[in-house]
Amino acid sequence: MWHQQQIHFETGGRETIDITAKVSSIVRESAVQTGLVHVFMQHTSASIMLCENADATVRDDLETLIGRIAPDADPEYRHDYEGDDDMAAHGRSVFTSNDISLPISAGELALGTWQGLYLWEHRYQPHHRNLMVTIQGEGFG
Amino acid sequence: MWHQQQIHFETGGRETIDITAKVSSIVRESAVQTGLVHVFMQHTSASIMLCENADATVRDDLETLIGRIAPDADPEYRHDYEGDDDMAAHGRSVFTSNDISLPISAGELALGTWQGLYLWEHRYQPHHRNLMVTIQGEGFG
Amino acid sequence: MWHQQQIHFETGGRETIDITAKVSSIVRESAVQTGLVHVFMQHTSASIMLCENADATVRDDLETLIGRIAPDADPEYRHDYEGDDDMAAHGRSVFTSNDISLPISAGELALGTWQGLYLWEHRYQPHHRNLMVTIQGEGFG
Repeated sequence: MWHQQQIHFETGGRETIDITAKVSSIVRESAVQTGLVHVFMQHTSASIMLCENADATVRDDLETLIGRIAPDADPEYRHDYEGDDDMAAHGRSVFTSNDISLPISAGELALGTWQGLYLWEHRYQPHHRNLMVTIQGEGFG
Repeated sequence: MWHQQQIHFETGGRETIDITAKVSSIVRESAVQTGLVHVFMQHTSASIMLCENADATVRDDLETLIGRIAPDADPEYRHDYEGDDDMAAHGRSVFTSNDISLPISAGELALGTWQGLYLWEHRYQPHHRNLMVTIQGEGFG
Repeated sequence: MWHQQQIHFETGGRETIDITAKVSSIVRESAVQTGLVHVFMQHTSASIMLCENADATVRDDLETLIGRIAPDADPEYRHDYEGDDDMAAHGRSVFTSNDISLPISAGELALGTWQGLYLWEHRYQPHHRNLMVTIQGEGFG
């Protein structure tokens, strides 16, 4: 069984958006009982990220850390045509991830207790983001 | 053919544990000849990591590098309820990985000569860690 | 439907090589219409990376950033038997990725407009690199 659909999010500029409920609902609609769901970000300046979902300060601190790894407006950047966040966004994307696969067990996303799936927008301005969700696995019987 | 099972490790606190043999044995039991095995860490403060397995100093040096990327007890952290390693562990997890897919060829994990698969515990204290292993592929005939 | 083949690249030493066309052509030959392609680097000193493909300065700047995360010849390294780039290459590999899965839609790689897939060689010297490509999905009808 294969199920594939593109989903869309309007971001408000640099931020994290919890997409767990959306992906979970697509998993349920697919009727796959045992399998995998693959989530793919079709852009190079935003990420797919799995992290702790109980306390928003975790994502504040991740913002602090990634701002050191791929700083805005770094004086050594050559690629800065679209502003201070242009190259930073590409770096933030490469040092995190654009794709993830998650297990499906008993028809549900098999995440740990405190795991949430996030879209991480790296640009300052709001963007329209396309994600491709691909589900495969076995159904009942 | 699908095969899925949860496996468990008791870590001794911050360390790397070679899980290649365990995953290889599950692959062999599955009888899949050509396919993929997906290994997923169901926690946000430990990682799945693929790295050189011949010399343990590689993992010592990775510890040095990741300690700079996501330092313990960073004064800018807001999320520090569980101690100096709390937010560091989440950062270490996000900047490495929680999931990996590996090819299965001729019924075996198709790793390179010096590649080993590791569980990387990021917390100071021993933890019980759950990983979901999902195998899919073709068998004989 | 499963299709698996090993592909090879001769790198010229530290550099990025666009492998999108090669992977795309294997996807087309597989005749899979809806599915996933998994690309796996069978080495621990080179990466698979997805990034912006329109402007080469993005990859120049990524080189700058990763050189800070996993510096060559770091005085704290213990693993330096093969030279200044030995441990740096392992670190660069761990903090990026060795594997990626990409969606296949309507028989084509479903990348975003500006996404390219790259082999990132981290060693100074030219190397022979083996990648395993595994494709699965549904064909016509």
